[in-house]
Amino acid sequence: VSAGERPRAAVVVTGSELLSGTIPDRNGPWLSRELVDLGFEVAHVQVVGDRPDDLAAALRFAADAGCALVVTSGGLGPTADDLTADVVAAFAGRPMELDEAMRAHIDARLADWAARTGFGGEALDRATRKQAMVPRGALALPPAGTAPGLVVPREGGPLVVVLPGPPRELQAVWPAALDSAPVRELLTAVPPAHPRSLRFFGLPESEIAATLRDLGATRDLSGVEVTTCLRRSELEVDLRPGPSTGAVADELHVELAARHARHLVSDDGRSTDELVAEALLARGWTVATGESCTGGMLASRLVDRAGSSAYVAGGVVAYSNEAKTALLGVPAEMIAAHGAVSPQVARALADGARERLGADVGIGITGVAGPGGGTEAKPVGYVCFCLTTGDGRVLARDPRLPGSRADVRERSTDIAMNLLLRALRAGE
Amino acid sequence: VSAGERPRAAVVVTGSELLSGTIPDRNGPWLSRELVDLGFEVAHVQVVGDRPDDLAAALRFAADAGCALVVTSGGLGPTADDLTADVVAAFAGRPMELDEAMRAHIDARLADWAARTGFGGEALDRATRKQAMVPRGALALPPAGTAPGLVVPREGGPLVVVLPGPPRELQAVWPAALDSAPVRELLTAVPPAHPRSLRFFGLPESEIAATLRDLGATRDLSGVEVTTCLRRSELEVDLRPGPSTGAVADELHVELAARHARHLVSDDGRSTDELVAEALLARGWTVATGESCTGGMLASRLVDRAGSSAYVAGGVVAYSNEAKTALLGVPAEMIAAHGAVSPQVARALADGARERLGADVGIGITGVAGPGGGTEAKPVGYVCFCLTTGDGRVLARDPRLPGSRADVRERSTDIAMNLLLRALRAGE
Repeated sequence: VSAGERPRAAVVVTGSELLSGTIPDRNGPWLSRELVDLGFEVAHVQVVGDRPDDLAAALRFAADAGCALVVTSGGLGPTADDLTADVVAAFAGRPMELDEAMRAHIDARLADWAARTGFGGEALDRATRKQAMVPRGALALPPAGTAPGLVVPREGGPLVVVLPGPPRELQAVWPAALDSAPVRELLTAVPPAHPRSLRFFGLPESEIAATLRDLGATRDLSGVEVTTCLRRSELEVDLRPGPSTGAVADELHVELAARHARHLVSDDGRSTDELVAEALLARGWTVATGESCTGGMLASRLVDRAGSSAYVAGGVVAYSNEAKTALLGVPAEMIAAHGAVSPQVARALADGARERLGADVGIGITGVAGPGGGTEAKPVGYVCFCLTTGDGRVLARDPRLPGSRADVRERSTDIAMNLLLRALRAGE
Repeated sequence: VSAGERPRAAVVVTGSELLSGTIPDRNGPWLSRELVDLGFEVAHVQVVGDRPDDLAAALRFAADAGCALVVTSGGLGPTADDLTADVVAAFAGRPMELDEAMRAHIDARLADWAARTGFGGEALDRATRKQAMVPRGALALPPAGTAPGLVVPREGGPLVVVLPGPPRELQAVWPAALDSAPVRELLTAVPPAHPRSLRFFGLPESEIAATLRDLGATRDLSGVEVTTCLRRSELEVDLRPGPSTGAVADELHVELAARHARHLVSDDGRSTDELVAEALLARGWTVATGESCTGGMLASRLVDRAGSSAYVAGGVVAYSNEAKTALLGVPAEMIAAHGAVSPQVARALADGARERLGADVGIGITGVAGPGGGTEAKPVGYVCFCLTTGDGRVLARDPRLPGSRADVRERSTDIAMNLLLRALRAGE
């Protein structure tokens, strides 16, 4: 289902290291989200190597796809294979010129670092000079690292915004790009996005498809773009109306939430993690973890959010049996009788963490993450969860989870977060 | 620097949810790594939405870029916006046909799940029928989930390999694609990759650029593709020779390792994590963690590897001061005198974790992850590390780290892993 009717934009990410799969690209997803939220239809995200011909072809491809805006990331570094500014300048028909003020600006930014680390000299001078080259008539944006961003107009379009590759620098320069006169002018022609978003836990995508078919039989849904995606075991459903189909999107939003209420996490895009944090803060509760197979992943996820010290007491990674007993008081006889991976031990981990850390809620996780260690009775992927509260409530699960060691550990963390949300909501 | 001379391949990833930035694409990087390792030059990775015209344009773009092979991921699901098989069939000039054997195969795979969950009926039948449609003359590969892979030849090229979107399914179907007759035939024309790889910790990219300029002044390096990338605070340098430049790559490999020996992690591509695991196993040592700001991230990273129970004793996430004292014996007076973020407390965390968990090495981390909580003396990003061993060795650091809360926590984990590697090597 496509919304149409929106100006198109594209993202071109450069970096041969991204093509060799050494690291995943973080900028493409981040930029396309920004563009979608601004109201563009994102035609594509393209990752190309540090080869001028391929980058030039990617820019032409975006122009051919009717894009009004192209955002590039990367290729502004000091090495000879960093060629984005040159290629974009050629694409826009503008010669490169040294921007002396920018060179001085970069020099000043690096002076401290050079003095502290001892790296510097000719290697640094060359790097700075290269990074201060700007296409004639383009707008240079002050750098967050050492590479300035660029806003480069092209006769007949598209407008090209050139950003540095390190995600932190890219995100720091982006607001200045949005605030530049050429981008602001372009944005006046882009209708606002107004997306609606729902999140479900444990609901297969085919159920959403069935609901959409069912609703589509009696009304026209074609003006709303529906995308589904599974992230952290949550099925996120985004509804993106065109400029004139807001009412259809609203109706879909209400129907999807109502028909799958049992699995609903939120109907406003909030994630389990946000909701858990809010609910813990609202109650003034603290949480403690006793983890075996997840090895600290649950505690780390709880600590991800700023301000988490208000509701995270701490946790114990009790990976060995000795640690379970010494640090969380799990009786050695219990482990001997039921095994380290058992509902009994999960409960003892939860109680032990809660009591020893003086928290209101304790969560215990013990399981067989694999690839080794599985038995017929307790195969790889068998994981026991228990959540206990100071006022005597207990929530337990012991599913068998599919996938690799990493999959089992990540999904275990997801399930624990969902259990926590259920416990917090049950008491409302 | 480009290797040239290699057959080209491209990756086309479909999914509007990837363009709205809801989740990052994992398949593009994974597939491009596979293709590079097979010896292809990867021309580009493209992410397009679930719009048939855009997918068709992406396939033509890959053909125009001279690609001999295109691998697609996604768009094989049960919903109406999953259109990859149809679009590829049209691109290759082949009509779609129902593969009855494949339909029976998928039905059988889903029977258990449908019975257990209660999801099924007409929604499921439609989904199965859709997923069993195959372009005439194409090869269908048995599914790992419910969507079969496809190998679709096209008159005049490229060969198109169509894979499902869920990363686990894609990776499970890939070996069968490689083993198919059309792909095997294509691979006979691809020279092996033989990449060389080096990893450095704490070395800026500009130093590698300077070394390459220096070496390039006296010899021709143009036949070796050099890519650098920073991942987990390690600078990874990959050298990819063309079919006839192996000797140049070898020389570069030796020179880069020698000139930056102080920062060298490995000259064979092994990561800090692999080296730490090997060294701990070789010594028969166990490690315990006492974490504050990283909140379990270090413990979780140590547990990432299969078999880690042999060398991970466990850890404590002592996020609150009370937890530091109760679980790891950090004296309350020490916290009062020096602050929870101090070299003294980092050491007490390391000692406490090591002793209480009966480990050979303890690592303590305490810092100001931000965004709040910074002071003039201890600003956001100030992190204290300490590593202690049972035989009395102590390694400590207290840098100020740049970036966001997530950056500070991730980099802290990287530094702790590097400290652990240094400690293990020092004792060799």
